[in-house]
Amino acid sequence: MTRFKLTLEYDGTPFVGWQRQANGPSVQAAVETAIERFCGETVNLFGAGRTDAGVHALGQVAHMDLEKETDEETVRDALNYHLKPDPVAILTAEQVADDFHARFDATRRHYIYRLKNRRPPLTLDAFRAWLVHPSLDADAMHEGAQYLIGKHDFSTFRSSQCQSKSPVKTLDAITVRRAGDDIEVTARARSFLHHQVRSIVGTLERVGVGKWRPQDVKRALESCDRAACGPMAPAHGLYLYKVDYDAKAAPE
Amino acid sequence: MTRFKLTLEYDGTPFVGWQRQANGPSVQAAVETAIERFCGETVNLFGAGRTDAGVHALGQVAHMDLEKETDEETVRDALNYHLKPDPVAILTAEQVADDFHARFDATRRHYIYRLKNRRPPLTLDAFRAWLVHPSLDADAMHEGAQYLIGKHDFSTFRSSQCQSKSPVKTLDAITVRRAGDDIEVTARARSFLHHQVRSIVGTLERVGVGKWRPQDVKRALESCDRAACGPMAPAHGLYLYKVDYDAKAAPE
Repeated sequence: MTRFKLTLEYDGTPFVGWQRQANGPSVQAAVETAIERFCGETVNLFGAGRTDAGVHALGQVAHMDLEKETDEETVRDALNYHLKPDPVAILTAEQVADDFHARFDATRRHYIYRLKNRRPPLTLDAFRAWLVHPSLDADAMHEGAQYLIGKHDFSTFRSSQCQSKSPVKTLDAITVRRAGDDIEVTARARSFLHHQVRSIVGTLERVGVGKWRPQDVKRALESCDRAACGPMAPAHGLYLYKVDYDAKAAPE
Repeated sequence: MTRFKLTLEYDGTPFVGWQRQANGPSVQAAVETAIERFCGETVNLFGAGRTDAGVHALGQVAHMDLEKETDEETVRDALNYHLKPDPVAILTAEQVADDFHARFDATRRHYIYRLKNRRPPLTLDAFRAWLVHPSLDADAMHEGAQYLIGKHDFSTFRSSQCQSKSPVKTLDAITVRRAGDDIEVTARARSFLHHQVRSIVGTLERVGVGKWRPQDVKRALESCDRAACGPMAPAHGLYLYKVDYDAKAAPE
């Protein structure tokens, strides 16, 4: 048996999310099916981040075990072949230690949220960014976001469906930057609550349009009350960008 | 009568190209139909660049005349409303002088060609970049491209269907730059021959993979022979980025 670490890119638009569900196609099921077509083995794929319906990935990580004697390039190319025409690509397949766990060993998850700030509709960026019409003050959004850095009870920014044991998380970094009509929010933490990034971005949008002051983000955080959160930003602007692991869990 | 200059963005994927054709939906027809729905007028829309099927635009420019008394914001918003669900957006609508001509007054056209240089298939960039598997030497491509700058007979890089009177064009600038797996070619000229940018990019790809030396681009150019051109790059990596006009033709 060999354990493989897969790094994946996908367009989340046609999927019900990462996780296998009864109500439609998932990324997990697409890859598990490709594995079965490749070698006949029925595997259970463990992902680092359970992205929601419509959420994209530039660097999702997952692991699985194969009985078949094979190598990294073959796994990558064969899975990409069998994944067609689904918009999922295996960027790399790496042999890792038998105790490597994509989800539990992840030391840091990086998300990007893309907003497009203009009046005309989206064309090439449709389903790839959140279109916000009113002019956004990205500097004020960045200022408000800085109140969230550190270890906090993030109940305000947590889905009612969140399965995490605790609402306490440590946000390592969050930035908001504008380049022309594009505004990019980046967020980094060991782990996030369900809907945490989208809830934060929805709240920062309120700051950006001037409905909230930057310091209102602090008040919302401290209230630990879901009702104090801004309207949640849509899924299609969110990208799971990268997942970090300690050297221990790196390919041997 | 008021003349309007429109700046347009579109995803070229579902279109037979800019120009109205009998065999399928064109961007020109989509916008002309939106204008008719807006004000009942049947107009003839003149575009600065006749992009081919699958070619995208970030800043195509076109002009048309309206009898209706209206203003710039109304034209932009009404056309965007009536263009739905086509992936075409009017970025700006500006009143211009009655003798402004989107095609003949253009002093410079800017194109971008996007390549993705990796083995895994494209997901989010499908139909938005040319996927090239073998490793490309972007510096060699850039070096080869520099031989094309200036006034030349570009017959080598010209479609047999090209309707231009002369094969002589002046290429102002061309660059090839890599950022990770992304390679971007930019090209700037008053005007281009039909298929000129895609023919040049296809030739530079030969240099990038090492089949040609940079100086072979010079030889291909000087041969003035279409047979000396590399295989033409696909349409879906090409973007009409921007069109420049002299102050004379700018909005009044």
